[in-house]
Amino acid sequence: MTFPFDIALVWLDLAGVFFFAVSGSLLAARKQFDIVGSLLLASLVSLGGGVIRDIILNTTPAAFSNPAYLAPPLLATLLVYFLFSSVQRFTSLLILFDAGGLALFCITGTLKALSLGMNPFAAVLLGVTTAVGGGLLRDITANEVPQLFDPKDIYALPAFAGATLTTILWVTGSFNALTASVVAAVVFAFRVTAWRRSWHVPLAVRGWQRLGLDGAGRPRD
Amino acid sequence: MTFPFDIALVWLDLAGVFFFAVSGSLLAARKQFDIVGSLLLASLVSLGGGVIRDIILNTTPAAFSNPAYLAPPLLATLLVYFLFSSVQRFTSLLILFDAGGLALFCITGTLKALSLGMNPFAAVLLGVTTAVGGGLLRDITANEVPQLFDPKDIYALPAFAGATLTTILWVTGSFNALTASVVAAVVFAFRVTAWRRSWHVPLAVRGWQRLGLDGAGRPRD
Amino acid sequence: MTFPFDIALVWLDLAGVFFFAVSGSLLAARKQFDIVGSLLLASLVSLGGGVIRDIILNTTPAAFSNPAYLAPPLLATLLVYFLFSSVQRFTSLLILFDAGGLALFCITGTLKALSLGMNPFAAVLLGVTTAVGGGLLRDITANEVPQLFDPKDIYALPAFAGATLTTILWVTGSFNALTASVVAAVVFAFRVTAWRRSWHVPLAVRGWQRLGLDGAGRPRD
Repeated sequence: MTFPFDIALVWLDLAGVFFFAVSGSLLAARKQFDIVGSLLLASLVSLGGGVIRDIILNTTPAAFSNPAYLAPPLLATLLVYFLFSSVQRFTSLLILFDAGGLALFCITGTLKALSLGMNPFAAVLLGVTTAVGGGLLRDITANEVPQLFDPKDIYALPAFAGATLTTILWVTGSFNALTASVVAAVVFAFRVTAWRRSWHVPLAVRGWQRLGLDGAGRPRD
Repeated sequence: MTFPFDIALVWLDLAGVFFFAVSGSLLAARKQFDIVGSLLLASLVSLGGGVIRDIILNTTPAAFSNPAYLAPPLLATLLVYFLFSSVQRFTSLLILFDAGGLALFCITGTLKALSLGMNPFAAVLLGVTTAVGGGLLRDITANEVPQLFDPKDIYALPAFAGATLTTILWVTGSFNALTASVVAAVVFAFRVTAWRRSWHVPLAVRGWQRLGLDGAGRPRD
Repeated sequence: MTFPFDIALVWLDLAGVFFFAVSGSLLAARKQFDIVGSLLLASLVSLGGGVIRDIILNTTPAAFSNPAYLAPPLLATLLVYFLFSSVQRFTSLLILFDAGGLALFCITGTLKALSLGMNPFAAVLLGVTTAVGGGLLRDITANEVPQLFDPKDIYALPAFAGATLTTILWVTGSFNALTASVVAAVVFAFRVTAWRRSWHVPLAVRGWQRLGLDGAGRPRD
């Protein structure tokens, strides 16, 4: 470790919280929620993943022990309220900020699990859970089909890649500020490229795409 | 503290559980769930907020350590089954019982956090989480748009006001049975009046109401 | 106890995890999720109930302390991907595997609560929560009406019966491998028969079925 670990982890985590909070406020704007709903959705998406992580790790959730965690959702709500004006760029902005949160949370979730002594498999699982948990809560609450399950998009794989890379770097003792930045950049680029190019992976059952049948046995449209 | 604190807290909490449980059974009736679904939805809404609170506080959830917490959902289910007959008064009754639960839970959630040594910001956040958590679970489970996010209504602000007032009273040493009752009455009146008069707060983005555009750039209907 | 208790409990739990995981992958197939979504939904449904159980019991969730728990969702995803071919048998298969998970989880959830010293009422409540929790998460996430609340079906009662029987056997000292198998068989048979024969229980409000009115006061269709 070549940098003050705990403080850097908190700053990384806070940056991730801010990115996810903006994605929550943007979704609230699109769903025409009011400004209180915007603050609530921003808080849920940005703090939810970390709260789940810390509850599983059996520590007091960071959002409840450190008041600094309440600033990013407030800031995001105000930024979207005062600065947002275009109705065209919603989706792009939401995807970009969400990808930023994803890239940071898969690292901080994995790191916190490893530093508290979890085994590598559990650390990867918890990193992915932290990264996708807040967005899943956001989409379920706003009654959207979760991005996570969109078969025309790739969402969980970048988080899985980031959590795995973080674990490998940690176990081999080569995790530092530089390698962490590379991992975050890779996850962000993977996620955004997958969305822009509509990359996708095979469906849950082999052969249905070839047969041209959908899950109910009807011809696909 | 001028009254036996722990016992009073449990009774307040149980009263809140009962109010929320009735709101759950009423929603189950409207959605035509059966009597088992009524009991389950009543349990989820009335015990869910407190379970989330106690998990975050890292204590055994009250519902699992004190069997008395199982009585209110049972009672509410039976009351709705045997006594409810009108199909007109659903919404009013649901809002009133829900407001009763909200008024009590924002106090008990905040108090429990403060008495376990949380900082004031965390206590307010946890009070609001306790108060709105059960209702959010109820609405998500019953596949309704959460009341919490209805832009034509005010739901979270009364809980926030109640949690803030409770924290101020506690910190200044003036929290007692009388001031607690006043806070509960204020929260209840705020919530019910906001609903009756359709009070609302600004949307998540400034200026769209003036422009007459909705979130997708279409003229508002 | 006539068999090595902890090891048997883990194996029972893993079998339940596998059954629920298959139900998750089958639902993912029907919803046309991709193979990553299939793995995620399988993990959520199969590990979610146990994670909720262990968080309430304030122990590290089994899925995060024992990597063996990650095998069943992986296996289920691969089995559904390679072996599933018919589009007709979805519902039957999903119900059968789900019933298998339900039968095992209501036993393991109750047992774990009792062995950690919870009172019998809490143990029954936690057994039911463990058994229905994963399926509820699965249905909410996949945007389906939760099976749990379908008034034309019986879902929670078998879990309640299983948790109650397990508690009685434990308290009377007659819980062993044989009686556990009988309880699991009873729960499974109860659940599957209720589904096949469309058993149902009364609605949440007495008399509406007789009146031929639905919850909004309109004549029933």
